[in-house]
Amino acid sequence: MSKPNNTLLCDFYELTMANGYYELGKGDEIAYFDVFFRTIPDGGGFAIAAGLEQVIEYIKTLKFTEQDIEFLRSKNMFSEGFLNYLRNFRFTGDIYAVPEGTPIFPGEPILTVRAPAIEAQFIETFVLLSLNHQSLIATKANRVVRAAQGRPVAEFGSRRAQGADGAILGARAAFIGGCAATACTISDRDYAIPATGTMAHSWVQMFDSEYEAFVAYCRTYPHNATLLVDTYDVLRSGVPNAIRAFREVLVPLGIKNCGIRLDSGDITYLTKKARKMLDDAGFTDCKIVVSNSLDENIIRDIILQGAKIDSFGVGERLITAKSNPVFGGVYKLVAKEENGEIVPKIKISENPEKITNPHFKKVYRIYDKQNGKATADLICVHDEVIDETKPLEIFDPVQTWKRKVCEDYTLRELLVPVFRDGECVYHSPHISEIQQYCRAQVDTLWEEVTRFENPHRYYVDLSHKLWDIKHELLEAGGAAVRHAEKK
Amino acid sequence: MSKPNNTLLCDFYELTMANGYYELGKGDEIAYFDVFFRTIPDGGGFAIAAGLEQVIEYIKTLKFTEQDIEFLRSKNMFSEGFLNYLRNFRFTGDIYAVPEGTPIFPGEPILTVRAPAIEAQFIETFVLLSLNHQSLIATKANRVVRAAQGRPVAEFGSRRAQGADGAILGARAAFIGGCAATACTISDRDYAIPATGTMAHSWVQMFDSEYEAFVAYCRTYPHNATLLVDTYDVLRSGVPNAIRAFREVLVPLGIKNCGIRLDSGDITYLTKKARKMLDDAGFTDCKIVVSNSLDENIIRDIILQGAKIDSFGVGERLITAKSNPVFGGVYKLVAKEENGEIVPKIKISENPEKITNPHFKKVYRIYDKQNGKATADLICVHDEVIDETKPLEIFDPVQTWKRKVCEDYTLRELLVPVFRDGECVYHSPHISEIQQYCRAQVDTLWEEVTRFENPHRYYVDLSHKLWDIKHELLEAGGAAVRHAEKK
Repeated sequence: MSKPNNTLLCDFYELTMANGYYELGKGDEIAYFDVFFRTIPDGGGFAIAAGLEQVIEYIKTLKFTEQDIEFLRSKNMFSEGFLNYLRNFRFTGDIYAVPEGTPIFPGEPILTVRAPAIEAQFIETFVLLSLNHQSLIATKANRVVRAAQGRPVAEFGSRRAQGADGAILGARAAFIGGCAATACTISDRDYAIPATGTMAHSWVQMFDSEYEAFVAYCRTYPHNATLLVDTYDVLRSGVPNAIRAFREVLVPLGIKNCGIRLDSGDITYLTKKARKMLDDAGFTDCKIVVSNSLDENIIRDIILQGAKIDSFGVGERLITAKSNPVFGGVYKLVAKEENGEIVPKIKISENPEKITNPHFKKVYRIYDKQNGKATADLICVHDEVIDETKPLEIFDPVQTWKRKVCEDYTLRELLVPVFRDGECVYHSPHISEIQQYCRAQVDTLWEEVTRFENPHRYYVDLSHKLWDIKHELLEAGGAAVRHAEKK
Repeated sequence: MSKPNNTLLCDFYELTMANGYYELGKGDEIAYFDVFFRTIPDGGGFAIAAGLEQVIEYIKTLKFTEQDIEFLRSKNMFSEGFLNYLRNFRFTGDIYAVPEGTPIFPGEPILTVRAPAIEAQFIETFVLLSLNHQSLIATKANRVVRAAQGRPVAEFGSRRAQGADGAILGARAAFIGGCAATACTISDRDYAIPATGTMAHSWVQMFDSEYEAFVAYCRTYPHNATLLVDTYDVLRSGVPNAIRAFREVLVPLGIKNCGIRLDSGDITYLTKKARKMLDDAGFTDCKIVVSNSLDENIIRDIILQGAKIDSFGVGERLITAKSNPVFGGVYKLVAKEENGEIVPKIKISENPEKITNPHFKKVYRIYDKQNGKATADLICVHDEVIDETKPLEIFDPVQTWKRKVCEDYTLRELLVPVFRDGECVYHSPHISEIQQYCRAQVDTLWEEVTRFENPHRYYVDLSHKLWDIKHELLEAGGAAVRHAEKK
């Protein structure tokens, strides 16, 4: 597949800063950036990381073409030295990231970059765009799939997606989150997401009658006959005509698998009635698929009300994460190297939630050995060593008197090496492995954390060492401000 | 620029239907499809059409590669005859559409396709995806820009966009809706949307002090020095340091143009205080840019409260149209040709708003000659002729007793030819012409229609002839259902 060169898919300020660092001789200073997010979409208890594979692809193929350089020159802002430097620009640093499909929580790094300042800064926009987009959709899909309680969910939203990649990679992310299939054909060709689909209302309208349309479809696809029954009237026309067509075409062939799809009306009422009509006619194996502006809340409600549904097609509310269409991942400088020493950096803000966790860090997930459940995540300084044979005391970083001692636990480091000195050292698993890993990891969360609303807050704590460093920097920042004020 | 081949960016059912039509010998039957939408985002009074240029590009480059055909063969659903037919597949039909930038209203066709059934059906997904995405963002941008009351608005949302095209083409759509610029560099290279930007918080953190960071930036970009003043503390550190840097670097150069940007905190309070500090220091030409999770409502509020702002950067809430991230355009069969006659088709539904307007149609916008204002839109059958010299009676298609006689009016046909027999006959205007056209067309709407909330409903009426045809089909549909019921 031919991919466009998205090197210039960057905020313009990445380039003004890069040119500035270059001109000031600061381009090679080693900088550390973290990606983290602040709020879980839809008030849920966790998010699902996704989009790393496209970050890898982007970084591997970073290249300024002569056309790009010509374009940049026309902006009259960049030095010739810098433009020349861009000719051989490539990423030479290190990247650590959580694998796709991992449940993630606010405040913890999900990707960390260590690289010369220009490089580390430059990749910001695409890294965020990719992780934000796919984590958003994977998180939403996971909610929808959990609401469906084992019934397959197909992603049907391409036509309402926010652009081509919104559709193509949205389908990929939805699969990671647990969807069984997509309507988007190209996502099957390029990402092995199974594509499915049968007919639109227009198929029915193209024939002189609904009955003829159904018979024609059954003859063409006797093994995949899912008929859309709501073009005219579901119970008075659609279902009776479907039953007639199944009888006349499928029964003589001995085919029992068939289906109907509803895309409008009161789904609970109509599926109960349709199920009875199908059963009474002997089509107990006929599947009922529904697809009318669904999301996790509607799916949960109609299942509770006893709707008779075998699988779901979910469109616009999944592919755009309609109820909460932004995943707010940010990219913040957390340290730089000075004379070979790592110097932690902090961003203070009027909005307290915008204050960052400084330093080059690693994240441990603590699992309870007894039941395999995830207890908490612990953010440490990169070189901290934890002796797993000893009890581990963790504490809430805000309400510091809230303490807990973990015993009989195992630790797993969440961030794994992805690039080392500019070379990719990570092998992306097959998409179906990512999906399985996601499901297994969500299963390690306490049920209370997976509630759709008002979930129990999963603890993301700081190590003692990191907490101390952060608070020293906050004190110093306050002092610096007071100092500036006096001037 | 290299573009990926998005031919297979289609719902899988487009292909199952296409193969079905091919096998049944129906592929060459001429079908008519309309794109229309049902609800204006955010409860607004109108939407802005956008995305046509990308539809044109898609249709011009439609091509199934051997790899595509091999992939489709592997699905075991398509006949060899059909797969072979795809080798030379191209669009040979006609397309009519409203120009980008046009204010559009629910229920009226914004794009009409006349083509052999397989072709007309196949392009559905991409046509909808492109028009839905860009119309969504252009509509949102237009609201944001109107709220800013003449202050420039820059689109800043790439990092939160739903995929690469969400960012790149989102910036294009935002420009059509009235944005002055984007942060997305590649949208400047590929679509001539001016890209702008200066620094992130990381720039400030890369230096030993905020003051040094500001001085360094002013030295590098003396003519474009917009300094981000909220890394530590806006009023106690950021603004005083900016003033110092301006004084030391810009004043000796005689440069008056400069700026500060705020990205957090209480914008109204902070900008008033900052404005006073800047003015007191003699920097009355210093511009204040703000960019903290803004949208049209916040912008309107802070302007009302007297915030001192020269321009806005709007991110996630614009690039995802966060408050309403779906534009619900649909693609419906409205007619087919039988023995050279156009036979209108209708889709009935349990949801009344899902009932379609049948037939091959055209749309007139009626302008009042006295004041140039748009009075109403009138949907007619394709071959209707209206004598503009005579009074024109229009009526509400639901409350049919509501009638109005237009006198002294001009008519403008909204749908213009885009493809004729598969050849593109439309020349897309330059993006800045589209923006100007959009602004001028929005100016033809009554103020009451442009209100952000509870706007006056703009009338979209049906001609007598079309109304009669629709109601005949509805009656016949009802009769067909009653007929099926008796069986």
